[in-house]
Amino acid sequence: MIHVGNAPVRACLIAQAERWTGLKLRECIDADPQQRAAMVLEAASLRMDYSRQRLDASVLADLLRLAEECELPAAIEALLGGAELNASEGRAAWHTALRALQPPAPVARLVLDERAHQQRFVEQVLAGELSNAQGEAFTDVINIGIGGSDLGPRLVGRALGPQRKGLRAHFVGNLDSAALSAVLAGLDARRCLCVVVSKSFATQETRLCALAVRQWMQAQGGDVARQFVAVTAMPERAAEFGIEADKLFPMWDWVGGRYSVWSAVGLSVALTLGWESFGELLAGAEAMDRHFAEAPLAQNLPVVWALIGIWNRNFLDYPSQVTAVYSDLLEYLPDWLQQLDMESNGKSVGRDGQVLAHPCAVVQWGGVGTSVQHAFFQLLHQGQDTHPVDFVLPRHVPGADPQMQAALLGNALAQSAALSHGRAPTPEEGHTPQQAAWRTCAGDRPSSLIWLESLDARGIGALLAAYEHRCFVKGWLWGLNSFDQFGVELGKTLAQGIEQGLAGNESAWPDALLRLQAQGLKGL
Amino acid sequence: MIHVGNAPVRACLIAQAERWTGLKLRECIDADPQQRAAMVLEAASLRMDYSRQRLDASVLADLLRLAEECELPAAIEALLGGAELNASEGRAAWHTALRALQPPAPVARLVLDERAHQQRFVEQVLAGELSNAQGEAFTDVINIGIGGSDLGPRLVGRALGPQRKGLRAHFVGNLDSAALSAVLAGLDARRCLCVVVSKSFATQETRLCALAVRQWMQAQGGDVARQFVAVTAMPERAAEFGIEADKLFPMWDWVGGRYSVWSAVGLSVALTLGWESFGELLAGAEAMDRHFAEAPLAQNLPVVWALIGIWNRNFLDYPSQVTAVYSDLLEYLPDWLQQLDMESNGKSVGRDGQVLAHPCAVVQWGGVGTSVQHAFFQLLHQGQDTHPVDFVLPRHVPGADPQMQAALLGNALAQSAALSHGRAPTPEEGHTPQQAAWRTCAGDRPSSLIWLESLDARGIGALLAAYEHRCFVKGWLWGLNSFDQFGVELGKTLAQGIEQGLAGNESAWPDALLRLQAQGLKGL
Repeated sequence: MIHVGNAPVRACLIAQAERWTGLKLRECIDADPQQRAAMVLEAASLRMDYSRQRLDASVLADLLRLAEECELPAAIEALLGGAELNASEGRAAWHTALRALQPPAPVARLVLDERAHQQRFVEQVLAGELSNAQGEAFTDVINIGIGGSDLGPRLVGRALGPQRKGLRAHFVGNLDSAALSAVLAGLDARRCLCVVVSKSFATQETRLCALAVRQWMQAQGGDVARQFVAVTAMPERAAEFGIEADKLFPMWDWVGGRYSVWSAVGLSVALTLGWESFGELLAGAEAMDRHFAEAPLAQNLPVVWALIGIWNRNFLDYPSQVTAVYSDLLEYLPDWLQQLDMESNGKSVGRDGQVLAHPCAVVQWGGVGTSVQHAFFQLLHQGQDTHPVDFVLPRHVPGADPQMQAALLGNALAQSAALSHGRAPTPEEGHTPQQAAWRTCAGDRPSSLIWLESLDARGIGALLAAYEHRCFVKGWLWGLNSFDQFGVELGKTLAQGIEQGLAGNESAWPDALLRLQAQGLKGL
Repeated sequence: MIHVGNAPVRACLIAQAERWTGLKLRECIDADPQQRAAMVLEAASLRMDYSRQRLDASVLADLLRLAEECELPAAIEALLGGAELNASEGRAAWHTALRALQPPAPVARLVLDERAHQQRFVEQVLAGELSNAQGEAFTDVINIGIGGSDLGPRLVGRALGPQRKGLRAHFVGNLDSAALSAVLAGLDARRCLCVVVSKSFATQETRLCALAVRQWMQAQGGDVARQFVAVTAMPERAAEFGIEADKLFPMWDWVGGRYSVWSAVGLSVALTLGWESFGELLAGAEAMDRHFAEAPLAQNLPVVWALIGIWNRNFLDYPSQVTAVYSDLLEYLPDWLQQLDMESNGKSVGRDGQVLAHPCAVVQWGGVGTSVQHAFFQLLHQGQDTHPVDFVLPRHVPGADPQMQAALLGNALAQSAALSHGRAPTPEEGHTPQQAAWRTCAGDRPSSLIWLESLDARGIGALLAAYEHRCFVKGWLWGLNSFDQFGVELGKTLAQGIEQGLAGNESAWPDALLRLQAQGLKGL
């Protein structure tokens, strides 16, 4: 198997990286602004300006050769065709089928039937035809889930929250009962729909949360049979919990949790936005899927985005990737991206079962600009290590004040210029050499601008799909399987041990557990 | 100047790190559980269990020698004594004076007078003696600030929110008008107090937000003179904005923004919690200050915590530090910590004006457990790089369900054991070698447990003060000034250029700014 570690073009890229240690981004940009200005790709509602990355056309040509050598075009076809790419678990990774207007034949019936089921449910709820025991319409939806059953719906719900046409959405799923109580305290139990999202319907956190919410609802005069919905691959367990057959929505083993917001896992989002907007979300993602399938590699936005990541990680040796989103509404994007990239590609063993000889996933971190400019950007400008930054910039935000929006995005452009060009005090400023050294920003730090035409359902769909494909391309070139997560499975196994170890004996837990912990995993 | 890069003990520590490349954490723990169990320090309401770090008593002894060689005890005395440690700006860093019941003489009058002013204001507001134009008591407080004027109050307000005795708190400060509108939409303008927090009263984001909130308040029949308060070092600018003299609270140049929640910058917190709890917050911090001042280095919790960080960064070469908080209420701690550590120590130039030859601040990142166990923990267990984890664990949370709390914290203990011990499938599980490789967690990954006795004001005060001191100790040993932030200043300068460049011409901004950006910083 050819991947980054043993691709023939690797030596060329190492030489390119050596050449770039002698180049200054500032000089490259100033020397040929027109060539730099051409370093832009567009797809669906996205526009990626990578002219401030530390690479040029010659590097990109080698990176594209790398992709060819690793047979990326065939891999993309395999992914979109539903091949069994998740070999360790014997499954496809066919999340793209969920957003296709005409899903591929093998799953078309399944997907379309369930989409129709979901649409019917959402429309009946929003029309008040499905109501509580008193005949009143629902006002709020509580999504009960964790990990992939939480981060996607939470991100989309927050991003598009101001465009809400349906229920208010709330997200719980951690074991934190104090936080759970705070959410429930603000709600009328009889007007809430509860969506329990759990593939196994046995995840410890989700189970305990769902039990607590059910108890609260019963105590407040709610009606569990009318008000609880489940999204799960284990309908019999959900039925046992008290959920009615027509309120069961499936999860399929060919869709991973972190890729599942497009399915019924996104039900809380659909109940918030209305069915039409949920359709726009799928359409935006499908537009990106089409681009990913059809665009030549050199014009393929997710592919080039991934190749830049590989260049920064494997050849320039940058230790992390920052994502700064210039909208409070996108505040959960960095969290979602952490799961997507680090759960998918945080591996040490390749598809062939061999230990990988080259570095893979970097730490993904970030936050909301401009706020983070006043926090960790100090380290980006004056710290020792280089951390590339993606500035995510929604060009239009419905309802935004033009002056503030221009100032907000202007800040991002200025930061990206400051990162590339740096700044040293001029002699006119009259500093001592010491004072000047403290004030110097070295520059030469790469960043990209990821423009989103509008902060709407279609734009968010395209953005998330682009990230999914970027992640897949990187994982493929690194030679690993992006679709299993045995490191997380270990945690789930441990949690079951804890629950059994504590059962009925919670008061003794700290000593008992610390003893078990001291012995490593024995007995857990 | 002696610091990590040129301290004589450095060679010993390099040899220690080489010795540790041959050691397995699992074996160390299993070989001498009693010795490991002693690797615990207590201070104020905190208990740090560092028995799963990859070090032993012999390493710690060398690290303590390093601290002695760098004259840490004198540095601690200088910090607490108000010496001019922020030499680049010619200032002290005397945040500890803000929480002392008896502040040090040179600033005692200032601090006590302002504390009394703050107390009077808070008590009058909560008693309804200070009211709106209609004579009604205030119900909500809006904190308008960014960076250090936002993260501290936001963290404390969220952490102690369920113990609220006063106003509901809201936090704005980004340039995001859509997000701002969403906050304001839920509020009654006539019942809101607005606290504008800005040292210069000229920070672009804060200024534009304050203007937008003032406009909203005027449009909704509020009374700016009665309802706006300012915390600033530039009272004349605040007065010009329309804020009355008795509603002006000072900021001092000897307190950095990221260390300022203990001053009037914490006013929104005091208005939320009530004055008594705010006093508890200060008392918790002061208890930690006393410990930091008096405990021998080997028993000094912030010192040992910092030394572990230096060991992991400079000798074991770990690229980042994860903080996983096991309470939703602590969700803003990782953000606050990013600013504290990365703004304080994200530097490349030493106190002597020379470029530093050793690595300094690592990337700080993290999130809320158990949620993040279902997201990025995959990479922690099976990724290639080692990222040490601090598990922050509140033992008691007021109102928490005992079963859920035990399960929540049990998860953290199990994860920390899994990180240290790893797990390989047993032959009985019947996997092929390939399947077993995919399922193996290598272990040998360090973590600490940071126990907080209770999630209350005193505990939070002690925790934040411990982080502040940890940060100072690391910065001191690295040989840099933790108290300036010229990289952030650059951003503020740029922002002024943007505002001027856009003034009255917002519609032309993307082209105009992209042109400016293409020319680097020229004209910005």
